[in-house]
Amino acid sequence: MLKVIFPDNSVHEFEKGSKILDVALSISEGFARNVLGAVIDDEKIQGLSEVLENDCKIKFVKFDDKEGKEIFWHTSSHLMALAIQRLFPDTKFGIGPAIDNGFYYDLDSEHKFTPEDLVKIEDEMKKIVKEGFSVERKEVSREYALNYFKEKNQDYKIDLIEGFDEDAKLSFYELGEFTDLCRGPHLVDIKKIKAFKLLSIAGAYWRGSEKNKMLQRIYGISFEKKKDLDEYLEFLEDAKQRDHRKIGKELGIFMISQNVGTGLPFWLPKGATIRRVVERYIVDKEIECGYNHVYTPILANVDLYKTSGHWDHYQDGMFPPMDLGNGEMLVLRPMNCPHHMEVYNNEVHSYKEFPIRIAELGMMHRYEMSGTLSGLQRVREMTLNDAHIFVRPDQIQEEFTRVVNLMKSVYDDFNITNYKFRLSYRDPKNKEKYFDDDKMWDNAETMLKKSMDDLGYEYFEAKGEAAFYGPKLDVQVKTAMGLEETLSTIQLDFLLPERFDLTYVGEDGKNTHRPVVIHRGVISTMERFIAYLIEEYKGAFPTWLAPEQVKILPISDKFNEYAYELKNILSKNDIRVTVDDRAEKIGFKIREAQLSKIPYSLVVGEKELEEKTVSVRKRGEGDKGSMKFDDFIQMILDEVQSKFIR
Amino acid sequence: MLKVIFPDNSVHEFEKGSKILDVALSISEGFARNVLGAVIDDEKIQGLSEVLENDCKIKFVKFDDKEGKEIFWHTSSHLMALAIQRLFPDTKFGIGPAIDNGFYYDLDSEHKFTPEDLVKIEDEMKKIVKEGFSVERKEVSREYALNYFKEKNQDYKIDLIEGFDEDAKLSFYELGEFTDLCRGPHLVDIKKIKAFKLLSIAGAYWRGSEKNKMLQRIYGISFEKKKDLDEYLEFLEDAKQRDHRKIGKELGIFMISQNVGTGLPFWLPKGATIRRVVERYIVDKEIECGYNHVYTPILANVDLYKTSGHWDHYQDGMFPPMDLGNGEMLVLRPMNCPHHMEVYNNEVHSYKEFPIRIAELGMMHRYEMSGTLSGLQRVREMTLNDAHIFVRPDQIQEEFTRVVNLMKSVYDDFNITNYKFRLSYRDPKNKEKYFDDDKMWDNAETMLKKSMDDLGYEYFEAKGEAAFYGPKLDVQVKTAMGLEETLSTIQLDFLLPERFDLTYVGEDGKNTHRPVVIHRGVISTMERFIAYLIEEYKGAFPTWLAPEQVKILPISDKFNEYAYELKNILSKNDIRVTVDDRAEKIGFKIREAQLSKIPYSLVVGEKELEEKTVSVRKRGEGDKGSMKFDDFIQMILDEVQSKFIR
Repeated sequence: MLKVIFPDNSVHEFEKGSKILDVALSISEGFARNVLGAVIDDEKIQGLSEVLENDCKIKFVKFDDKEGKEIFWHTSSHLMALAIQRLFPDTKFGIGPAIDNGFYYDLDSEHKFTPEDLVKIEDEMKKIVKEGFSVERKEVSREYALNYFKEKNQDYKIDLIEGFDEDAKLSFYELGEFTDLCRGPHLVDIKKIKAFKLLSIAGAYWRGSEKNKMLQRIYGISFEKKKDLDEYLEFLEDAKQRDHRKIGKELGIFMISQNVGTGLPFWLPKGATIRRVVERYIVDKEIECGYNHVYTPILANVDLYKTSGHWDHYQDGMFPPMDLGNGEMLVLRPMNCPHHMEVYNNEVHSYKEFPIRIAELGMMHRYEMSGTLSGLQRVREMTLNDAHIFVRPDQIQEEFTRVVNLMKSVYDDFNITNYKFRLSYRDPKNKEKYFDDDKMWDNAETMLKKSMDDLGYEYFEAKGEAAFYGPKLDVQVKTAMGLEETLSTIQLDFLLPERFDLTYVGEDGKNTHRPVVIHRGVISTMERFIAYLIEEYKGAFPTWLAPEQVKILPISDKFNEYAYELKNILSKNDIRVTVDDRAEKIGFKIREAQLSKIPYSLVVGEKELEEKTVSVRKRGEGDKGSMKFDDFIQMILDEVQSKFIR
Repeated sequence: MLKVIFPDNSVHEFEKGSKILDVALSISEGFARNVLGAVIDDEKIQGLSEVLENDCKIKFVKFDDKEGKEIFWHTSSHLMALAIQRLFPDTKFGIGPAIDNGFYYDLDSEHKFTPEDLVKIEDEMKKIVKEGFSVERKEVSREYALNYFKEKNQDYKIDLIEGFDEDAKLSFYELGEFTDLCRGPHLVDIKKIKAFKLLSIAGAYWRGSEKNKMLQRIYGISFEKKKDLDEYLEFLEDAKQRDHRKIGKELGIFMISQNVGTGLPFWLPKGATIRRVVERYIVDKEIECGYNHVYTPILANVDLYKTSGHWDHYQDGMFPPMDLGNGEMLVLRPMNCPHHMEVYNNEVHSYKEFPIRIAELGMMHRYEMSGTLSGLQRVREMTLNDAHIFVRPDQIQEEFTRVVNLMKSVYDDFNITNYKFRLSYRDPKNKEKYFDDDKMWDNAETMLKKSMDDLGYEYFEAKGEAAFYGPKLDVQVKTAMGLEETLSTIQLDFLLPERFDLTYVGEDGKNTHRPVVIHRGVISTMERFIAYLIEEYKGAFPTWLAPEQVKILPISDKFNEYAYELKNILSKNDIRVTVDDRAEKIGFKIREAQLSKIPYSLVVGEKELEEKTVSVRKRGEGDKGSMKFDDFIQMILDEVQSKFIR
């Protein structure tokens, strides 16, 4: 007999050799029906057919769990592979894992897969599901595995097997006629895979290296219920419509020029307007909160990054240095921190001055492989909303709280609601992996936690995820594309003050005290933040951010003069306004203004001219009727003032 | 007899061999007394002792003329050299020319010259002037000259002579015992040098090359009258006080970090505030004038600069390119033009859209030798107020006028009054040196001239000073340091549209028409402009630009609360305000606020608290008495609104 600890800490006994399915059935048949596998001892994911040999802790997982999806999608990948093997028997298989959003399989084939093929493969998959195989696991020797796949001409599997030791025990998973070299785990019953869709075909190098052959990768997604699949496909369609690269081009927000280079976006006039509004907003907000904005050079002597440690640890992410020939070796900065340390060191500081908050919209350059670059999202040149706060150790909590409050206030203004806090501590079992100052760490972690508790926010505590130099808080947002991203961050740093020998004069009159540095970013880089906003708003920027806030549409030439009169008044009130004075039909003009996602269109004709009114059309709401022009001004000014309107 | 044409075009006859002095005397003795030399045939400057051999045109020059000063200061340099030769006989002489502001001589000596030596040399110079030598010219052969200076061990003169052809005729100028190899011309009578001052000692490499020996350079200045010298010394002292490097450090406007690199200034919080106000001002102003602001990458593929022609013609001014190893070769941009051409080429344009105005606060990098870098004035990283306007050829005049009006309006806001317009045309005699389109040149030059005439501005016409690619207007300001600088520029460009193949769809429906590009900059780079303003304002920025506009000075702790209450109200009104709540005497606080050149200090105590008033002290005007706080707010808001107050 062996002891199995359930999540409620109750201990149950089972015969040695029981399957995980047996344990699930011991709870109830209904329960077992929804279970896809289990996590054993907090680390190993296993399928239901796996056998328990030792005492263990068990946590069952369903589709809703990350681990449940992993099992489900992994088996879906094998299901797809079987269908492909049947339809295209000459296919050589690469790898076929579950990923964050579904699964894929890499294939080498003379045949070039087409969207039509995907439908055929789906049909075959449906047939297989009906046939109702179960997935069988089998342990084999390296030699056996090698012979098996040599016979089948599966070169990529052979390549994988050759990477194992001579005496390695490998596992095969068999699904009908398709046998795969695979670590598992898998579903026991493929009938659970009720709804699936093959989504796309892409190219991918074997083992991700440009030196190897380019394979064909088929992506798919699957669910337990058709309804979930439909919802997901709807989400995908919506995401496609929200893609900032698509909207960015349609609305003239940014462009890329291959003559200039990849990963170097140009902000076109409309995008530049949005960026300018955001930049002025965050700079003014930070100044209001006691930050001192600076502009510092975007280059530095390589030695500066040797002092900071970036040269040793981050060189791959930096552009190559420029040798000026006379001993000067300059490099584009990948981060602003060292520059702000230099600002601090420009003067002697007293304990009375703290906190000292140095902020910058700082341009930086990071070297990324050209293949990974994408729109505004992944770029080589970026401008970061950055600040470094210098505090005394006793001020950590108060300043941390201030920064969190600033973040919250900014999120409100942009209507960012879908976010989570994540506090990262050091791993108390591996203290030697972190900056060596026990008291500082304990003090800081306690302060951060207390601050979050006092503020009343929920947060996740991630032990062992702190950086070498200090604990941190990350704010993760879920983007409209379904991805998790770090939008804001507050990182304590005990190391940089040492490396740059930062000091201050304490109450004892000695200039030997060390401040703590807080790195913090609220809205990340202008590039990523505005890519995020485009997708979040689907291009329909709230009035305060919209590059064009009002478009005036005279119904004929006769009213152009009145239209320009109104334009001038609005411009004087700092409203961004244009006139569509083309000799086009009014319906056409209205439609175009709508497509450009302009918040307000003002139609003006005879009646409006006489009554000094405007006929207001609001984006998303349509015709709002006639309004005194003065009332309209007041309304839009109020709306801009109050930022996001719910 | 030979014919001499006077400036009034009258023709006079003189005997061959007459001296220029004789010609001057023929006008009147009084006239001749003030004349220092003459310009012969519009090109050659000659001294009064020079002999006329041919018919010629003559223009006499006095000290007030540029050429007059040149003669005067050149002789002053020889005068100094004679004094040095007497006092320090082992000195070897380099070169000793007149410069824009005085003269210098480069010296090689075991003796290290000190400020005390300068006084001794001045005294000797006074003695020499009393002795009253005249300067004698003598023509010699190269061989004679060589032997003469070999005997005197004058290595640098020998080095100079060796640069001449074997059969060259050289000239010596003798002043007392000092004989110099010199082209002249010189004063006849050194008694004219009544007032002089030796200003400083610096190091300078022989022939300006780091490979040669470092010599000692003594700078001096001289005048005809003591009063002029006194005024000049006063100006120098004032200029020293205005030096933006001095004020920039004192007021915390910028810093340089040797750890980061030379020519890479950091804008400290106060400087960053001034820059931010200027940036927002000019961007808003330009948007109001129909400019489309963009942000474009500060890097580009080297090929882009091959297309633009910068790579062939401007490579020495660029940073070295960065080889990313995969065929990508990026370089920091030295100019924004090519990027704006790419923005233009992102879309098809119609003749109806013009003018299209693409503007940017564009960061650029230019490689300058580290020795030439200075403060904010001469830097390697700069942000330019730049725009490129695309016009049809028929729109040149109207758009040119608009730009000049924009400039004028900006100068008014900053109280820039000391400027001159300079129109540069091509040289009609050397058309082959310019972009080949006669009609375009004639048309453009006519339009520019007509625009300036219609505007009623005075301007200087500089024939032959246009760029290869088109005519231009420069605006030269005289800085507080006495230097002429180009602040604004409008340059037409016929070439870039060809190189980037810019086209637009004309009325004929064909996309084959070429626009003209107008490069224009109103306030130059942020770095140079703010350096200029610091010196112009002597650090006392007008209220709308001042980094701190108001400082509130509570007379004791008891009134700190009231002070902070006022601060909050002012902050809400976008006034930049701080409170000096230190436990210092009020007199001390007032003095400090004055030294920081803050426009307004508000003293608050018992009386002010009770009456809701503030005691106002204005920079430069002192105590303005008590004022209702609300009235103060209104007054300062009006002042900010109206920008520069005269």
